[in-house]
Amino acid sequence: MSAPLSPDLLARFAALVGERYAITDADAQQPFLKEWRDRYHGKTPLVLLPGTVEEVAAILELANETGTPIVPQGGNTGLVGGQVPHAEGNELLVSLKRLDKVRAVDPDSNTIDVEAGVTLQRVQEAAEAAGRFFPLTLPSEGSCTIGGNIGTNAGGTGVIAYGNTRDLVMGLEVVLPGGRIWHGMRHLRKDNTGYDLKNLFIGAEGTLGIVTAAVLKLFPKPRSVGTAFIGVDSPAAALALLNVARENGGGTVTAFELMPRIGIDFVIRHVADARDPIEGSYPWYVLLEVSNSAEGGVNEALEAMLMTAYEQGYARDAVIAASLEQAADFWRLRELLSESQRFEGGSIKHDVSVPIRLVPAFLDKAIAAVEAFIPGARPLPFGHLGDGNIHFNVSQPVGGDKQAFLDKWEKTNEIVHAIVAEFHGSISAEHGIGQAKRKLLPGVKDPVELEMMRAIKATFDPKGIMNPGKVL
Amino acid sequence: MSAPLSPDLLARFAALVGERYAITDADAQQPFLKEWRDRYHGKTPLVLLPGTVEEVAAILELANETGTPIVPQGGNTGLVGGQVPHAEGNELLVSLKRLDKVRAVDPDSNTIDVEAGVTLQRVQEAAEAAGRFFPLTLPSEGSCTIGGNIGTNAGGTGVIAYGNTRDLVMGLEVVLPGGRIWHGMRHLRKDNTGYDLKNLFIGAEGTLGIVTAAVLKLFPKPRSVGTAFIGVDSPAAALALLNVARENGGGTVTAFELMPRIGIDFVIRHVADARDPIEGSYPWYVLLEVSNSAEGGVNEALEAMLMTAYEQGYARDAVIAASLEQAADFWRLRELLSESQRFEGGSIKHDVSVPIRLVPAFLDKAIAAVEAFIPGARPLPFGHLGDGNIHFNVSQPVGGDKQAFLDKWEKTNEIVHAIVAEFHGSISAEHGIGQAKRKLLPGVKDPVELEMMRAIKATFDPKGIMNPGKVL
Repeated sequence: MSAPLSPDLLARFAALVGERYAITDADAQQPFLKEWRDRYHGKTPLVLLPGTVEEVAAILELANETGTPIVPQGGNTGLVGGQVPHAEGNELLVSLKRLDKVRAVDPDSNTIDVEAGVTLQRVQEAAEAAGRFFPLTLPSEGSCTIGGNIGTNAGGTGVIAYGNTRDLVMGLEVVLPGGRIWHGMRHLRKDNTGYDLKNLFIGAEGTLGIVTAAVLKLFPKPRSVGTAFIGVDSPAAALALLNVARENGGGTVTAFELMPRIGIDFVIRHVADARDPIEGSYPWYVLLEVSNSAEGGVNEALEAMLMTAYEQGYARDAVIAASLEQAADFWRLRELLSESQRFEGGSIKHDVSVPIRLVPAFLDKAIAAVEAFIPGARPLPFGHLGDGNIHFNVSQPVGGDKQAFLDKWEKTNEIVHAIVAEFHGSISAEHGIGQAKRKLLPGVKDPVELEMMRAIKATFDPKGIMNPGKVL
Repeated sequence: MSAPLSPDLLARFAALVGERYAITDADAQQPFLKEWRDRYHGKTPLVLLPGTVEEVAAILELANETGTPIVPQGGNTGLVGGQVPHAEGNELLVSLKRLDKVRAVDPDSNTIDVEAGVTLQRVQEAAEAAGRFFPLTLPSEGSCTIGGNIGTNAGGTGVIAYGNTRDLVMGLEVVLPGGRIWHGMRHLRKDNTGYDLKNLFIGAEGTLGIVTAAVLKLFPKPRSVGTAFIGVDSPAAALALLNVARENGGGTVTAFELMPRIGIDFVIRHVADARDPIEGSYPWYVLLEVSNSAEGGVNEALEAMLMTAYEQGYARDAVIAASLEQAADFWRLRELLSESQRFEGGSIKHDVSVPIRLVPAFLDKAIAAVEAFIPGARPLPFGHLGDGNIHFNVSQPVGGDKQAFLDKWEKTNEIVHAIVAEFHGSISAEHGIGQAKRKLLPGVKDPVELEMMRAIKATFDPKGIMNPGKVL
């Protein structure tokens, strides 16, 4: 790491945004440095809050000239430490929060232009106000920003129908490390005039430049949405159900979430008014959502499909939400799965994906391996089966020592990731690499691919000022 | 351009694939050099037909070592000369046709693994045989290959619902200029482990490496498809209809093609059994297709939507296909538009896109400008309104001199492209840059973007052996 930054240089940076938006006070810096799970502890001499794209450009120009490392930040909700400076305190944090304008909404073209600091929820609301739908949805949508979503190629439950953030971006405005601005705010569904640069910046976690604005795709609002909670015997049965639902569900499958019984148990045990949507107990559950642009008819199709699935043995029991409130209750069970784990002691987490067909075999093998390594450990794998993305969480043994369990984090990761590799999967399906998985990357990436990544980094950011020590 | 290739070097290349697959005979070379519209005239001392990925790698290794230029080719159906060697005859043509295996079909994961030389039609058929649907469709699908589709990011009529080829690719296998193989055949819907390299090669027109295989996405087969032929007053009315259809059409809008009356006239005049689907004559027509995974009900929803559109004035008259045969007749009118132009003399073509909302204003201005420049010229703009992509073709004045008209090709392009620029559009929506538009690129691209493209080219292909003189 480089030397501490001189007061003189810091003053030059501060002058670019004005004193009010150059934060040095430790307390005032806290919201930018304190990561919500308290896992990464960052330090910086200066938090910069530029108010215009030109100010971002001036910051990166000076940073490049002086070799000053920059950590870009959106809503500070990332899960892998990508948005947190290192503990040495010689990096500047650039928050994009003040770039928070919705520049334009065009319902005819189904596009919205937003600056990087606009929260995901505001994007959703602006789309709604224009009679349209923006499908990205995340638990942190009230505070995460679209710039962060783009930097990390955020996923969520809607990916099965609408794709990752990458698939929702039509154009970008990006400030490059030297301070030049790429005006790539295209509104074109088709444009075959050269290399696709947009996708390089999406998911690059701020290591190639700073995204300052984006053109996003909007969609027609679904007119009818059917939501079902289904008990199934196994992940294999759930997978069969997924394909039946895709073909006969009466619309587009917009969510297909797998949950183990133990997860439902945790939620019911620890959340006051949570309860089982269906009687009896099944080893696994599926939360299925089907959306259609037609007026009504979805629930009838859903019911017919579930009846067939029941007869064919894919579904053991099921209930279709009779109201928006009941649908929200189903979703609440899913959303509280992760959170309710903390009442059960320590938890070791993984965010992995494998080809969809291989999810059942992967789960069998990973569950067995973890239970063998930590007798009594309670695997709680859940997530987006329709995308092959499983949050393979493991709760500690009942009555065991929390710290002793958590000390096995890395080794458990190793065991699970080795099985992921065997199934040709990914060790970071949606959260990214950041600081958390940086050291794991060389072990899982094709060396040719890693070399291409390094060559691109060196080409775009030869001085290595953009979010150093993240990803690569 | 570099010096002629020595017989010794050619023999070394030929040895890599075996004599049978190293074509020097002029007649045998013709299918690879003769471009179907006879616009580009290429020459090569050697057509190489490698049979394995390793042979492709050996070719690029030797090419890189010796600085030998390589032109990769799929089905030789490209429209911008990207697949054709230059006339100097010092480039080797590498055809991927022998890499023609469907490696795997996985209906559970909804993926198919194919080699670059598999024709688009074979991909569609393999999907169909597995009970799935591959949505890319092109007039040339019987002969174009998936490698070429990927290299050019092919579009077509299904883009409105399924996206461009880019959106259909999950993983790639690519041979890099130095001969190394990138094994990127991922089957993952979610994978956030570093930079997105896949999209760099898609649409790069063979200038960064050779795609040898791909993992493609499959979809559930639509169970009901409704097809309507609709007379409208103007592109603005068609645009209003598009949004109504998206919201109330009873399913996903899978095609929305705009056609002018003059185009229908041409087809009816020159194609034996073609006839007007609806009585009377309207200035513009829309071919609308709506698809749904539900069993039936699409036509009823389509009819109700069209009734509303009629009442609100967006639609003047409409007919819904009562049979697959009738739907095919509608499509035939659309597909013959371009071809039937040749019976009307010379035709100057453009493949442009603008933001969807701006299509009506763009058409007004471009039609007026072309008519002012060439009195009597007959603009025939048609295409994928739902993607903002218009094939802005212009037929010569009745009774005029063909060559005198065609001599105005470049100047007409200039006029139309200037209007495209004003509307923030693209001068190549789906055909690519190739040789045809290479010189236009610097005039229409953001200089920062062009510089990034050049930097990437220099990083990936420092010796400039990959398809030189194309794109950049």
